[in-house]
Order: sequence, then structure tokens, then C-alpha cells
Amino acid sequence: MEPAPVYLDNNATTRCDPAAVEAMLPYFSEQFGNASSTHMFGAEVGAAVSRARKQLQGLLGAKFDHEIVYTSGGTEADNMALLSALETQEGRDEIVTSAVEHPAILNLADHLEKTGRAKVRLIGVDSRGRLDMEAYRQALGPKTAIVSIMWANNETGTIFPVEELAALAHEAGALFHTDAVQAVGKVPVNLAESAVDMLSLSGHKLHGPKGIGALYVRKGIRVRPLIRGGHQERGRRGGTENAPAIVGLGKAAELALEHMADERTRVAALRDRLEQGVLQRIGNCFVTGDPENRLPNTANVVFEYVEGEAILTNMNREGLAASSGSACTSGSMEPSHVLRAMDVPYTAALGAIRFSLSRENGDADVDRVLEVLPGIIGKLREMSPFWRERENHAANPSYA
Amino acid sequence: MEPAPVYLDNNATTRCDPAAVEAMLPYFSEQFGNASSTHMFGAEVGAAVSRARKQLQGLLGAKFDHEIVYTSGGTEADNMALLSALETQEGRDEIVTSAVEHPAILNLADHLEKTGRAKVRLIGVDSRGRLDMEAYRQALGPKTAIVSIMWANNETGTIFPVEELAALAHEAGALFHTDAVQAVGKVPVNLAESAVDMLSLSGHKLHGPKGIGALYVRKGIRVRPLIRGGHQERGRRGGTENAPAIVGLGKAAELALEHMADERTRVAALRDRLEQGVLQRIGNCFVTGDPENRLPNTANVVFEYVEGEAILTNMNREGLAASSGSACTSGSMEPSHVLRAMDVPYTAALGAIRFSLSRENGDADVDRVLEVLPGIIGKLREMSPFWRERENHAANPSYA
Ligand SMILES: Cc1ncc(COP(=O)(O)O)c(C=O)c1O
Ligand SMILES: Cc1ncc(COP(=O)(O)O)c(C=O)c1O
Repeated sequence: MEPAPVYLDNNATTRCDPAAVEAMLPYFSEQFGNASSTHMFGAEVGAAVSRARKQLQGLLGAKFDHEIVYTSGGTEADNMALLSALETQEGRDEIVTSAVEHPAILNLADHLEKTGRAKVRLIGVDSRGRLDMEAYRQALGPKTAIVSIMWANNETGTIFPVEELAALAHEAGALFHTDAVQAVGKVPVNLAESAVDMLSLSGHKLHGPKGIGALYVRKGIRVRPLIRGGHQERGRRGGTENAPAIVGLGKAAELALEHMADERTRVAALRDRLEQGVLQRIGNCFVTGDPENRLPNTANVVFEYVEGEAILTNMNREGLAASSGSACTSGSMEPSHVLRAMDVPYTAALGAIRFSLSRENGDADVDRVLEVLPGIIGKLREMSPFWRERENHAANPSYA
Repeated sequence: MEPAPVYLDNNATTRCDPAAVEAMLPYFSEQFGNASSTHMFGAEVGAAVSRARKQLQGLLGAKFDHEIVYTSGGTEADNMALLSALETQEGRDEIVTSAVEHPAILNLADHLEKTGRAKVRLIGVDSRGRLDMEAYRQALGPKTAIVSIMWANNETGTIFPVEELAALAHEAGALFHTDAVQAVGKVPVNLAESAVDMLSLSGHKLHGPKGIGALYVRKGIRVRPLIRGGHQERGRRGGTENAPAIVGLGKAAELALEHMADERTRVAALRDRLEQGVLQRIGNCFVTGDPENRLPNTANVVFEYVEGEAILTNMNREGLAASSGSACTSGSMEPSHVLRAMDVPYTAALGAIRFSLSRENGDADVDRVLEVLPGIIGKLREMSPFWRERENHAANPSYA
């Protein structure tokens, strides 16, 4: 019998929890009304949307449920935060952000700069992925409209000191936004006690449905719609409410809260065992990210002298799903911008594999990786001219 | 036994067809991978998204499946069309649109004008809701970036001559966009033989899921993303693909094609019977919209001397769901901007009720309206001082 496939790509997306699907189901074909309708087909839907908002509020520890603006996902929330700040922060046109943000921030910021709508100050990170605090302080100023620094990095799991960063941003009169798409559901968030002004999250990263996310906007912070239309979301986001997905996200938020302790102990231990096991069994590899401040579920390992894409293809044949941060750009593989910002050498960065676990993973999954991966890496290295060269000239690694 | 509730508000939203829900289901918790992932958890999802794109292509009669850009709904598609045109149409900053568009167009256009990013030329309509063609021709010019005129109006069902309008827009060098949210699935669309450059649609208006829609962009027409992030949708719309909803919309598109004939014959006949029955049984009411060019499912009836909201409340008690085009703005009811643009007097417009049917309605639904509505209108009129006044001075209606 084939072993069951093992999913270790939970930072890409997660399985929607069957309990969340069950919660959504009545809102497709039974309670299918428009949440804004006042008749009996809409009333229960509106109430369900309100209940779901409370559930998400609970996970975020937000003071008010109306601080939540539903969006179609993390990308829309990120875009809305930046564009809104440029409109509301009069006389300020600079965006301070990090070099390791998700494309939902970086590609927009780049576009805004190219079209002359903003000036972007990109803050670097050190080899562990930690923000260059000195550069950060210096970038802040009277022109800073908004700071956007992620809560946790999607590739390495590195966690940023958002409270400290937010306080500094406020000293400069800037708004502070955090892309918490990878943090919400994995680490505790308590916005009532936070200085964060805006926060993005995405349902499908926390065992909720795809196509739904939210921008948290602290009460009192002015916000401009990215999508204009009807009066939904208190005029902050037009479009018929995606009631089933909102209900599913609410349920997922409730479940995430229940599983939070498990994530931080059992899942973290699994991740550690995976990481240690790999390092013990396979030579010439190293873990990236900040060992002291990391998501509990993420392990990013660089395997030198091998291509990540080749590793993934071989893992896939064995039923193991993970990902590399590399991207195919105009026909050739480009290494992850995150690892490059951390000064991981170009070819080494091409050998990175991200293992991202969730509450659905168990010991057998880690066993399977440890059983299969050494053989895969060994085989690939045998075929690699760089590896053979290195064996000949061990003192002078060819990737440097 | 209480009679089953009757849903006559299908222009607000439709029941998601159980077959569409069934098609979606595997993509929540089984085939839950990221459509962009290359491993076995993503491969089948990517294939499903491709199949769904073909199904939607079929409904639209589009030449290429990549002319479809998925969005979170009709509002996002509308916003994307306008904003994209302002970016791509260099030297042109005018938007030509109609006074009876949905807020997804009108509110954005208004915002763009107020913030100096565009000049908006609003074209009026006649008493049947037909576009003022003379004014339209005159509004077009070398500064027109885009024309956005809806395919069919959501309140009255009036259908606009989009091909003629598109041809005129092209003569002026402008792009032509149509908000076809109410048309797609109700009337045949054949974009391969059309002059339309861009077209918006929304899943939940055609018995598909909420939270998904599309902007059709004709091959060769340049487009700029509204939401920037990853490379999804060929770089035209960032954000993890909402695979379950895309699959659901694909199935809904297939079903809509199958039911199209039914919609245009049986549903149209039902609507006509409802309309005639109401006009026969109830005095002082009239149908709005263009009787010659109307959606087959929509009947908008103005009941003089009564408030639409009061009618709806009473209908709701009897298990009948419909809607009025009125909106509660800062505490008081404002009549529909569509009816006002058609020169329906202010108080009369407040008495409008929109009945919107679908393939799920049957004879019994119409029977129930005809049984219940005359009593409701009669009772409300008895309580109305305007009605009593009118009975005293029949020659001089007080609403004029
Ligand atoms: C004509 C028209 N355009 C746009 C929309 C907006 O669609 P959605 O609510 O799916 O964003 C609607 C529906 O409310 C509509 O009737
Ligand atoms: C850190 C981060 N931000 C934003 C996003 C975008 O979220 P979505 O794909 O739901 O729009 C992702 C996921 O891809 C992410 O990891």
C-alpha cells in the first residue's frame, strides 16, 4: 500500500476544517439571502455574519467587532491598508516596509513608486531575517504615511517585533500596518492591548475558506475603501457580503483559538524534530530564520548543491508536499527574495525548502520526511557537478 | 400549515444551485491545495480552475478562456474596469456612464471626480429607462477614457443597446465596459461576436456562489490590476485563487446555459402573469422600465400612495420576499436613483417594488402574490392620508 500523502505546505494554504465547511453549508442554498436584505431570507444571514464577526474579534482580541472589514483575502487587505493610508495621511507620501514582505505589499509598493504616487523605503534584514532597527529608525520621518511590516514571514517564520515597531512609527506620526496573514491562528494576537493600527489576515491560512480575509482597522483610524460600491462593511468595502465564507472564517477563528496551545507545543515540537532530524541525517544544509522568534510551524532549510525544485519534484513522487520560495520568472528560476535579503548566497537560496506544518500533522508525517529526504538529497547531489567539484575542492565551495 | 416562503428577490442574490455547491465541496477539505502549487495537492486544483474557466467562457461565448479575470464579485470587477482604463488610456481622463448604473460604478465615478482623478459625464435616461442617445453621442470625445453602460438595469430590467453603444465609444477611441451583472445567465451573451471590451459579472446573481465574479477583458485590451500581489490570473489579479468558488461559478455557468431557454420563455411568462395580475387587481400602479427591452425575470411596479418599505414589511409577514430600490440614507428613506432618473415623481418612486424571478419560481409563487398583495396595498392605502386626500380630490393627486 502507498503511504498517504503528507501535506507540509500549510503556509501556502491549509485544509479548510470540515467543521468550518459544515458551518458554511446552510448559507449556500438554504439561508442564501443577501445579508443586507431586510426580509426573512436575509435576516438570518445578517445575524450569522454578525456572529462570525464576533468569533473573529475573539481570535484577534479586538475591542470592537466593527474594527473588522471583510475582504476577499490577505492580498486585498494589504492593498487596502497601503492605499488608504496614502489617501488619509495628508502631506505624507512615504511607505516604510521591509525587503522580506509578501508580494501583496512589495509589488504594490513598487508600482506606487514607479507611478510616482509614493516613495518607498525598503528596510533590510540581517542573516536571521531580523529587521535592521537602525535603518528603520532612520527611515521614519515627517513624510512617512504608513509603515507596513509583517508580523511573521511566510518563508522563514521569523517574527517581527510589531509592538516596538508600531510605537516608533507612531512617534513619527505614521500609521502602522502589519501583514499578519501567517501569524493569525498560529500565535496569540491581542489587539485590544496593541499599538497596531491595521492588520491583514486571510481565511485559508488558518483552516478557513479561501476567498475571504479581513483588514482590522482600529477604531478612530480613518480608512478609505479600495473597492467602492454599496454600503456594506459600514461603507468601507462594497460588494455583496460573502456570507458563507464569513461564517466559515468565523468558525475557523473559533477553532484556531481552541487549538492555539496545541500549535505552540505539539506542532512546534514536531517542527523541531523534523528540523533536527534533517540536520542530523543530511550534511551541508542549514536552517534559515530567527531561531528565537519564529512561528511554531515553519522550518526553512537550505540544502546546498541541490536545486529546491528538483527536491520538491522528488518529494512529490514520494507523496510529500512542501514548497520552495523560488519563483519561475521569465523561464528561469529565481531564488526567494526573502533569503536573498538575508544574504543567503544565490545558488544556496535556490536549494531552500519550506516545511510548514499545522495541527493536522502528526509524528508519522515527520517520520516519513526523515525516511525519504536523505535519499532524495543524496541522489540529487550525486548527479550534481557542483557537488562533485566541492568534494574535490572542499575548501572552496563553488556556490560562494 | 403556513405556505412556504416565496423568494422574488433574485436580482439581489440567488440560491446557489445545489449542483454548484456539490461541485465546490471537494475543494474545501479534500482537494484543498493552492491552485498555484506544483505538488499533488495543487495539481488537481489548478486543473479544476482551468475547467471552470472553460465553463464560464462557454456562457460568455468568449474566444479565449484567458480573457476571464476572476474577481471577488461584480463590484470589484466594475472598479477594476474603470480604474484600469484611467491608467491605460493615456491623455484621456473622462468616464462616460449612465445615471442609472449600480453604486459599484456610480460611487467610484463620483469619488474619482471629487478627488480630481477623472471627469464624469453622466448620461440621462427617458421615462422608460432608455439611454439618451443624443446626449451620449455628444459626451463622447477625444478625452473619453472609458464608457461604462450596464447591459441590464438591476431595478427595472431595462436592457441597453450595448453593441451600438460600444461601436460609438470606439469611434471616439474610448474603451467600452458593460456591467453585465444582471444580464449574464439571464440573456444570451456572445462576446466573440461583440464589440464590448470589458464586461463584469457576479457569481451569486446566477445561482453560483457569493464572493466570486469576473472581469472579461478582450484579448489585446491592456488592463491594470486593481489588487496587486502574486502572479495569479496572469498577473492581472493577485491573491490565492478562490478555487471552490471558481469551480462553483463554472458549474453555475454551465447550468445557466442549459436553463437559458426556460428563463426566456417560462420565467418571462411567469413575470408577465405577475405583472398583468397586479395591474388588473390593484389600481393606481404602473410598471416601470422598457417593455420592449427588458430582462425576462424583472418586474418593477410603482404603487402610488403607499411606501414601498411598508409594502415589503407586510409582504414579509406573509412570506413574500421582494425589494424596493429605496435606500435608508442618514435615517430617512430615499427613493431609487434609477426611478428618479426616469422622472418618476419622488413620492411615487418611494412606492416601488421590484419582483425578480428565477428558474426556481413557479406558478404557485405568482398565485400567492396575486392572492396577498391586493389586500396589503388596500390596507396600507386605507391608512394613508395621501390616499384619502386623493379620493377627495381625485383630479389633483397630492404626490405630484
Ligand atoms: C448591476 C449590478 N452591478 C454590480 C453589482 C454588484 O455585484 P456584487 O454585489 O456581487 O459585488 C450588482 C449587485 O448588487 C448589480 O445588480
Ligand atoms: C505573508 C502573506 N501575506 C499575504 C498573503 C496573501 O494572502 P492571499 O493569498 O489570501 O491573498 C500571503 C499568502 O500567500 C502571505 O503569506
